[in-house]
Amino acid sequence: MLCRKVRNQMQIDFDKMDGLVAAIVQEDSTGEVLMVGFMNAEAWAATADSGYVTFYSRTRKKLWMKGETSGNRLRVLSAATDCDRDTLLFRVYVEGDGLVCHNGTKSCFTEPLSINHSRTEALK
Amino acid sequence: MLCRKVRNQMQIDFDKMDGLVAAIVQEDSTGEVLMVGFMNAEAWAATADSGYVTFYSRTRKKLWMKGETSGNRLRVLSAATDCDRDTLLFRVYVEGDGLVCHNGTKSCFTEPLSINHSRTEALK
Repeated sequence: MLCRKVRNQMQIDFDKMDGLVAAIVQEDSTGEVLMVGFMNAEAWAATADSGYVTFYSRTRKKLWMKGETSGNRLRVLSAATDCDRDTLLFRVYVEGDGLVCHNGTKSCFTEPLSINHSRTEALK
Repeated sequence: MLCRKVRNQMQIDFDKMDGLVAAIVQEDSTGEVLMVGFMNAEAWAATADSGYVTFYSRTRKKLWMKGETSGNRLRVLSAATDCDRDTLLFRVYVEGDGLVCHNGTKSCFTEPLSINHSRTEALK
């Protein structure tokens, strides 16, 4: 267990953002991006050891296993880091009722933003 | 155009992370998460106006349109922010040869991380 922890932590660059990395949660079965949180080294170790996504709350300054109270825990099926080793991607199965966002939606990304397509549409 | 800029910027919380928000890039056709970068308000405005993902480089301290040199630009098909308005999600079409990562792979998330599945497997 210790070997896994040490090996994994060495693969992740926590220094670039004051001890934190962004952690993307993606539903494995659909590919839908559900939410993004932050992990410090301790949160990452808790995630790797428990198999459930555990974030570090910047406002509460403590670890929180997502869904521990609601039952909508995020069971990690696979995890990867990127070429800079400063972002994590988790493919998960959502337990419980599957509503990840505290607003009662499946995904937190529910607010559309306007994009000007006039320049790119000319290229199609 | 000004109205769109102002409206969009008011929807995004740049204050939580020193003027920056994380920006996830997801291939629209497959759902694959390709990379994550950072945007400040100027980079977001450039993205919304050009229709191409434009990041703010924290190391070079300037804007960069991803793929402007290589030709692998990220054409934005849709964009959204989350319930906290501090993360952006872009669904894109990758122009050029489709290899987004500077290491020559399609996605930057190529480094698998070990997860202990023994606790969650017991729940299946």
